[in-house]
Amino acid sequence: MSEPFKIGIAGLGTVGIGVVKTLIQNKKIITQRAGREIEIVAISARNKDQDRGINIDAYQWVDDAAKISDIEGVDAVVEMIGGEEGVAAQLVRSSLQNKCHVVTANKALVAHYGLELATIAEENNVCLMYEAAVAGGIPIIKAMREGLAANEFSVIYGILNGTCNYILTKMQKTGKDFAEILKEAQEIGYAESDPALDIEGIDAAHKLCILTSLAFGVKPDFDALEVTGISHINAIDIKFADEFGYCIKLLGIARCIKNGVMQVVEPCLVPKYSQIGKIDEAYNAVNVQGDLVQTPLFIGKGAGEGPTASSIVADIIDIARGKNIPAFGIPVKQLKNGQWISPGSVSARYYMRMMVTDKPGVIAAVSAILRDKDISIEGMVQSGRSPGQSVPVVLTLHETQAFKVQEAAKEIAMLDCCFENPCVIRIEEL
Amino acid sequence: MSEPFKIGIAGLGTVGIGVVKTLIQNKKIITQRAGREIEIVAISARNKDQDRGINIDAYQWVDDAAKISDIEGVDAVVEMIGGEEGVAAQLVRSSLQNKCHVVTANKALVAHYGLELATIAEENNVCLMYEAAVAGGIPIIKAMREGLAANEFSVIYGILNGTCNYILTKMQKTGKDFAEILKEAQEIGYAESDPALDIEGIDAAHKLCILTSLAFGVKPDFDALEVTGISHINAIDIKFADEFGYCIKLLGIARCIKNGVMQVVEPCLVPKYSQIGKIDEAYNAVNVQGDLVQTPLFIGKGAGEGPTASSIVADIIDIARGKNIPAFGIPVKQLKNGQWISPGSVSARYYMRMMVTDKPGVIAAVSAILRDKDISIEGMVQSGRSPGQSVPVVLTLHETQAFKVQEAAKEIAMLDCCFENPCVIRIEEL
Repeated sequence: MSEPFKIGIAGLGTVGIGVVKTLIQNKKIITQRAGREIEIVAISARNKDQDRGINIDAYQWVDDAAKISDIEGVDAVVEMIGGEEGVAAQLVRSSLQNKCHVVTANKALVAHYGLELATIAEENNVCLMYEAAVAGGIPIIKAMREGLAANEFSVIYGILNGTCNYILTKMQKTGKDFAEILKEAQEIGYAESDPALDIEGIDAAHKLCILTSLAFGVKPDFDALEVTGISHINAIDIKFADEFGYCIKLLGIARCIKNGVMQVVEPCLVPKYSQIGKIDEAYNAVNVQGDLVQTPLFIGKGAGEGPTASSIVADIIDIARGKNIPAFGIPVKQLKNGQWISPGSVSARYYMRMMVTDKPGVIAAVSAILRDKDISIEGMVQSGRSPGQSVPVVLTLHETQAFKVQEAAKEIAMLDCCFENPCVIRIEEL
Repeated sequence: MSEPFKIGIAGLGTVGIGVVKTLIQNKKIITQRAGREIEIVAISARNKDQDRGINIDAYQWVDDAAKISDIEGVDAVVEMIGGEEGVAAQLVRSSLQNKCHVVTANKALVAHYGLELATIAEENNVCLMYEAAVAGGIPIIKAMREGLAANEFSVIYGILNGTCNYILTKMQKTGKDFAEILKEAQEIGYAESDPALDIEGIDAAHKLCILTSLAFGVKPDFDALEVTGISHINAIDIKFADEFGYCIKLLGIARCIKNGVMQVVEPCLVPKYSQIGKIDEAYNAVNVQGDLVQTPLFIGKGAGEGPTASSIVADIIDIARGKNIPAFGIPVKQLKNGQWISPGSVSARYYMRMMVTDKPGVIAAVSAILRDKDISIEGMVQSGRSPGQSVPVVLTLHETQAFKVQEAAKEIAMLDCCFENPCVIRIEEL
């Protein structure tokens, strides 16, 4: 058997502790599969003396995480600090420059600085691995880089944020409104006290940015991504969607269109009984379509101590076994600049819900605006009657470009009879 | 860039042609991902002159497939002939002995002779890869050997045969009987003219045998596997299952029980709205439960030219990139002998459907037999009444061991009032 593979651990939050525990508890099988022992030689975290329920005395303590790759003999550094700037970023850069492999769960870092980091990794002939960054317990990065590597990909889409899917599922099941369910989710630990990264779609966008690069061989470009969160989704939208046979999911979608790529994170209406529509609670799911395989769907818990540790340790085993493939599947110099197609220019069907005064002439005014934008109405529902009061009116619109719908929505919002900005949601027949 | 990676192709059926086409059509992206060109240097098939819609003149023709690894410079042989004996087996053995890597889609060969072949591969320091052997378009072998390698596995189960799932789904949707749907499936090419391998569960058993080895680090042992097919499943069973909230799926299940492993392929009642219950038509699905990830589910088309070629070419790319991991995830000498637990000794709930004379005393006779075996009845349904005629009576049984239920079924079959062997199906609350 070869020499032990030596790692330095940076960060001892839930995930960091999960990784240490896994390496201890599953030592035998991990050693068999890696073909050599995985040995923790150094650890760094904010506070040495905090009780974490595991004994870390056997490992060398490093005060400055960014220096962990300086420790003699460290083959790989496992970064579990988080955040795209600060210590995590310094540490990953310096480790790669020090010819240490890096395993990270840091989706923000990879989405924002992946290209730079992949370049450093290649220059130093070491790996940058980040399976845990996207859909924790699902080995989707491996599937894209390796298992499906024979395919030309056309689309990748998925439910990439468990918190949002949990909230939308609960809204669907209880009929309660967004704010109320968010509060409940925070109380049971399914949403952060500052939920912005999740509910505004940023977390899902970090993941999509990475998947887009892997699927289409383009440089990851987070700033090119259009993102809409779920906080504007109302209980009433969930109810109407349901009546039409749909549910609402926050989707990340990257699609190859001619020579360009459209990438977008936004809530969409999807058929209730489609495979993706049936993914409930905190589950993640990713669907990939290539020229050889059209329909593989990967479902699993995307976060938490176990799933995240599973992916991080799998990456460590891979490197210990001798794997070294480029961070984004192909060498950096072969990655293309993305020719980004604005989602607004792509045709789709739309759902539009307005709150309008229940009085004659409202529909005439709305439909005139739509007609002038060349948008065709597919269906209309007005639920209940309360003359002179605000009532919801829901339209479904035939295929049209998003920017036209957004322009129409702005004009409708300015009508006297309209109480608030219309809620516009894309319909995806996946 | 490195030297081209040179392969010999053995077999030019649907899959073989799919692989050649893929290597030609997706050459650019495959070269980028493999880091080097994949070059076909030799081809062998039964008939050189058959028109296959592709031009194979550029490749050296080899009459005797078993000699393809003798061709100068061949790095890997791709075996797509099939069958666990004969040319395919000779070719794989001789190639490995010749220090050529082997990529195969041959599940029967790997299930029956995997241990021997893995040993030869290790001795010669080459790879035996077989992603296409299990659930074609789903990279499940890679997930088990690599992506989930940090886990101690407890259970793996799945729908592993698309033909059976197609037949069972159509029976459910149409209410038609097995024989009629099988005939229709044969007419549209979803079932072979000799369907035995599929409908008797053998094909699924080959796949399960491989997954069991990967999951539990045991020597693959096809003969230790108990297999029941689907040809005894009646339209009436599908209907009753549905009334109870279940559907019937042919499952392969391998479960770690204390220090042993139970592996079985048999039709099971599964909850209609469970994830596995929702997998319809010709789809495959595999669920893996480990100590870190409990619920990843992989869904996809398991067969056909595209999905199979996708997996074979991914294996080729992996080897071209320099991967070399043991065939069953850990070195052969570390594989344990399976301590096989008989499925009959494991407790489960059961469905039992009898065709009995509609007359007084029948239920008393049946329930006395069950009582004497210490089997407790959970529910009973008799549908319709036709005094003196044969009617179906369905029981659901509380948790008990399979062998007891089988014994009881035999005794019930011998009752005068019983028209045929009772149909016994395990209930799996997955």
